Amino acid sequence: MTGLPANWEKLFSSVVSDSLDACGITNQAMPASIRPLDDNLVLCARARTGMYMEVAYVEENVNPYELEIKLVDDLKPGEVAVLACGGSSRIAPWGGLLSTATHVRGAAGCITDGFVRDVKTIRELKLPVFHGGIAPLDSKGRGQIMAIDVPVICGGVRVKSGDLVIGDADGVVVIPREVEAQVLAVAFDKIDSEDHTMAELRAGDYLRDVYARHGVL
Amino acid sequence: MTGLPANWEKLFSSVVSDSLDACGITNQAMPASIRPLDDNLVLCARARTGMYMEVAYVEENVNPYELEIKLVDDLKPGEVAVLACGGSSRIAPWGGLLSTATHVRGAAGCITDGFVRDVKTIRELKLPVFHGGIAPLDSKGRGQIMAIDVPVICGGVRVKSGDLVIGDADGVVVIPREVEAQVLAVAFDKIDSEDHTMAELRAGDYLRDVYARHGVL
Amino acid sequence: MTGLPANWEKLFSSVVSDSLDACGITNQAMPASIRPLDDNLVLCARARTGMYMEVAYVEENVNPYELEIKLVDDLKPGEVAVLACGGSSRIAPWGGLLSTATHVRGAAGCITDGFVRDVKTIRELKLPVFHGGIAPLDSKGRGQIMAIDVPVICGGVRVKSGDLVIGDADGVVVIPREVEAQVLAVAFDKIDSEDHTMAELRAGDYLRDVYARHGVL
Amino acid sequence: MTGLPANWEKLFSSVVSDSLDACGITNQAMPASIRPLDDNLVLCARARTGMYMEVAYVEENVNPYELEIKLVDDLKPGEVAVLACGGSSRIAPWGGLLSTATHVRGAAGCITDGFVRDVKTIRELKLPVFHGGIAPLDSKGRGQIMAIDVPVICGGVRVKSGDLVIGDADGVVVIPREVEAQVLAVAFDKIDSEDHTMAELRAGDYLRDVYARHGVL
Amino acid sequence: MTGLPANWEKLFSSVVSDSLDACGITNQAMPASIRPLDDNLVLCARARTGMYMEVAYVEENVNPYELEIKLVDDLKPGEVAVLACGGSSRIAPWGGLLSTATHVRGAAGCITDGFVRDVKTIRELKLPVFHGGIAPLDSKGRGQIMAIDVPVICGGVRVKSGDLVIGDADGVVVIPREVEAQVLAVAFDKIDSEDHTMAELRAGDYLRDVYARHGVL
Amino acid sequence: MTGLPANWEKLFSSVVSDSLDACGITNQAMPASIRPLDDNLVLCARARTGMYMEVAYVEENVNPYELEIKLVDDLKPGEVAVLACGGSSRIAPWGGLLSTATHVRGAAGCITDGFVRDVKTIRELKLPVFHGGIAPLDSKGRGQIMAIDVPVICGGVRVKSGDLVIGDADGVVVIPREVEAQVLAVAFDKIDSEDHTMAELRAGDYLRDVYARHGVL
Repeated sequence: MTGLPANWEKLFSSVVSDSLDACGITNQAMPASIRPLDDNLVLCARARTGMYMEVAYVEENVNPYELEIKLVDDLKPGEVAVLACGGSSRIAPWGGLLSTATHVRGAAGCITDGFVRDVKTIRELKLPVFHGGIAPLDSKGRGQIMAIDVPVICGGVRVKSGDLVIGDADGVVVIPREVEAQVLAVAFDKIDSEDHTMAELRAGDYLRDVYARHGVL
Repeated sequence: MTGLPANWEKLFSSVVSDSLDACGITNQAMPASIRPLDDNLVLCARARTGMYMEVAYVEENVNPYELEIKLVDDLKPGEVAVLACGGSSRIAPWGGLLSTATHVRGAAGCITDGFVRDVKTIRELKLPVFHGGIAPLDSKGRGQIMAIDVPVICGGVRVKSGDLVIGDADGVVVIPREVEAQVLAVAFDKIDSEDHTMAELRAGDYLRDVYARHGVL
Repeated sequence: MTGLPANWEKLFSSVVSDSLDACGITNQAMPASIRPLDDNLVLCARARTGMYMEVAYVEENVNPYELEIKLVDDLKPGEVAVLACGGSSRIAPWGGLLSTATHVRGAAGCITDGFVRDVKTIRELKLPVFHGGIAPLDSKGRGQIMAIDVPVICGGVRVKSGDLVIGDADGVVVIPREVEAQVLAVAFDKIDSEDHTMAELRAGDYLRDVYARHGVL
Repeated sequence: MTGLPANWEKLFSSVVSDSLDACGITNQAMPASIRPLDDNLVLCARARTGMYMEVAYVEENVNPYELEIKLVDDLKPGEVAVLACGGSSRIAPWGGLLSTATHVRGAAGCITDGFVRDVKTIRELKLPVFHGGIAPLDSKGRGQIMAIDVPVICGGVRVKSGDLVIGDADGVVVIPREVEAQVLAVAFDKIDSEDHTMAELRAGDYLRDVYARHGVL
Repeated sequence: MTGLPANWEKLFSSVVSDSLDACGITNQAMPASIRPLDDNLVLCARARTGMYMEVAYVEENVNPYELEIKLVDDLKPGEVAVLACGGSSRIAPWGGLLSTATHVRGAAGCITDGFVRDVKTIRELKLPVFHGGIAPLDSKGRGQIMAIDVPVICGGVRVKSGDLVIGDADGVVVIPREVEAQVLAVAFDKIDSEDHTMAELRAGDYLRDVYARHGVL
Repeated sequence: MTGLPANWEKLFSSVVSDSLDACGITNQAMPASIRPLDDNLVLCARARTGMYMEVAYVEENVNPYELEIKLVDDLKPGEVAVLACGGSSRIAPWGGLLSTATHVRGAAGCITDGFVRDVKTIRELKLPVFHGGIAPLDSKGRGQIMAIDVPVICGGVRVKSGDLVIGDADGVVVIPREVEAQVLAVAFDKIDSEDHTMAELRAGDYLRDVYARHGVL
């Protein structure tokens, strides 16, 4: 998989969301219900997707975690697991053991619209995890991973393995691979101009004057 | 699969729900959000289950309907498709073509917590269908059937192939196979005593007197 | 309890809602989630309130229906049971037996933000019932009536015994007893002027001309 | 505004939704919460949009209905008012008077994600109205129309004046003007092939054979 | 605008809510979904209102922020922007630039039932902001301010410019201008008596004894 | 009431949830909407239950807090108040005064599916409180306690006085009294094996190897 773009450390979710808007792509931010476990951590990584299905039983003599293990064991630095739970409010795909394995691999973290648990352990690892809720539940007997590296809808946003995902205290935004270059060019430009606007406001300028000068807010 | 119990035509959802309560089994009624397409139709049939997963793409050169076709082509008189969508609000597994195929097979109908469409066609067939909403959407590219004849959670109730399902204008209730004999014995008793209570109320008796006589309401 | 106002048969929910608005009282309509069982029936009656609490067990040797029986046995023509379930989505206070008893008493019907069942029976009685959902559940072991003839909040609206309740295909509106005379005076005026407006529109006049003439829409 | 396409009477919402899917446009169906007032009516018309804002007061000496009157008085045969309420659950933009005016103009009906009232009157007119709920509320003091003939989001779907809107018992689908020719070409093809599939199923063929022959379901 | 009341630093949301209750005004607290960005900050200020409408497009050659700029540039110490989004879950009216401008003006902060972004920046400013969710979205193309200094409904509570707003870790409460003197008199009394109750409980007294002495809890 | 089990300090919610799963009891975790006030506090205690009902008025000359006072004054070390609000979103049963009284008694804390207030005070006490939301509201005139030490449904889970409740940053889990010995035996076993798994993952082992060795994840 292609590496991360140059200067990716400068990216943050709101400027990326504005840049996607400027390119006419307006549904790439996950909703406010997807929150970071730790507001201080920033994530910029390429997605590795997994799709979960609700189940109502535990199958005998089968490893329900097979694809999950395969996905996490294969995560590389700069990659983030994006685990879609298909609207279920029963599935809790992520926890302390997978976080530890991810951290040891040097991979970037996890984004899921399902639940997470073992949050104290995960926070101690300083691993960026974005989730749809916290619950003490195991996935076994509730949800099962059915496919990896396929397009998924996570938090209402379509994500493909390889898409660039940015997450921070403001939430999660996904840049589709095919528009990445265009969106990032806009984003790095915006980062510069927002710095000027902010500096002028901090210096005491009125919004009307700043807007008159730059035509943006 | 075992046939329907004797006198099944006398069963209706509220008396079955009370009988399950009386046996200490209290979570077998689907929620008020699962509604019949036609309030005049009554369903009593054995479940044949299917489990759907949300998908975000159409796979090439694959028949996404394979298990769905297998399930419906195999439905027999006295059997009802119970299609679980795992909490998704994107999946619409049922419509006019599957209804027609089910009707031609002589099977009993469909229960799903997903969406249905072609509702005019289905109503003309007088096929009992209970659903989680009406929408004009195809399942292709939104949801895919992943397993049949496995335990599922549909409308919040666990259903196994072979369980007895009763649906009417009041909603849907599921009797687990392993308690069926016990629950039905209670139900047929209750049907008799409710007839007496109702007759006395119709005759103008006060509730306090009817309750004093029968100890039930 | 005071009888119904003169000409109450002319009242309907939307004109009563507008009249309450005109008097500066704007929160008297129940939400769109409270629906009639039969769109063809109209209800105008004085409230008799009951308050339910969620319970999680069945108490031995106790009549859980005691206050419910007392309330319904005491309903008089021109009175409607208003049963508040306090936000619970487990309580189903109304069904065919209580409907039959109410009908035999000549009382007006039932309004509840809980569930109803036996809806075919109730529709055959032509008894106006407005509800928060349909489910086959008994109240026993799920909810219990704790007080009658006390102020309640039903469907988000405060209702006291004696308040005038109007229900029809558009929904349910409550006129507090203490503003009834004022609101009804406005309502009967409005009924006349709406008739004129409607007649002119039916005759083909444009909205702009009708509004210019009457200053209302 | 351009007239309706040839053979528009043959269109129905589910085939149009499938045709949009086939063209890669998958978010054009309004959700299951938007329902017809009358399941027997079919609507195919060009949108005329209006956008509402929640308000918390009645402004003196101002006609709050000005743009609403302008929009409805200007509706022509083949046009439907599409009224977006921006997510509010307080706004009730449509009722009997506007329905009567629309009917007299010979216009097609109304689609709104807000509430409607006077539903008995509207049903008698046989005017197709699709809505987000029924409530007896006036819009005055709750919501105000702020713009007409601008792009709006109604029921989660972006609609522009001139877009083709199809509504029936299955729900509402919107064809953007710029892809209309392409989508309709697919739709009329699909209508023919679905007829064949349905005929074969009615004749008793199994789904597996029908699918093998036509590759569609 | 009138300044803040004497001793406003002693006010907190729960005692103000109780005082409103004591005056018979019971719907002045925003719901639990409106949360502070920083639990350690306390806000007491006079409201300056703004009303947003959902939009679905960006108008060319127009400054969509005009009224927003006017409102924030005009904020004075002791004033708080109260931005109502009318039930929309798409509008994000507040962020780092407006927070910085507000902070530089010495104004008090912001309350909105819409979304905020740039939360790290805002927290560094120690500016009290209460919000309906966090998302990285711009308001441009999603929502537009349509009026300022008009009555609005924000978080379900009616707010007029000049009303006193109290916000802290427990939430947000609004005191209507016309009852302010009466409510504050009650509030300052309550603050004193709660101190006594708390001291006695801390000293180990039982609730029954404390309640017997003071008749309050 | 029986004391706490030996080694209760080692218990945490996720391992207890897994142990209940292993015993075939799968609905004992409260939903993700029930959150701790302080993520750093851990609770393990026996439940003392209270059931609240929504009320719409304040009764004169009655102590609405009577049972609440009785329950809290009677709390002993190792006991936690479990206050069920029956689905209401109006009831706020817990706050600073009850927390202080509980803390002084040496009792364990509070779990409610209603709202809490005075959260700064409660956090300073380091009292573990788990809640359904934060709001500045008093319970008086909104909800009233109707029964104590009866079975309740709190956060969707059935709880009886004497049941063991475990709460921490991952949420709240309830062990029914009658299966406690069995569940705890499983739990203490699991705690040991999870330690091994975690140690191996921390040492850099792949998930596939750890799973192959232990057959668990």
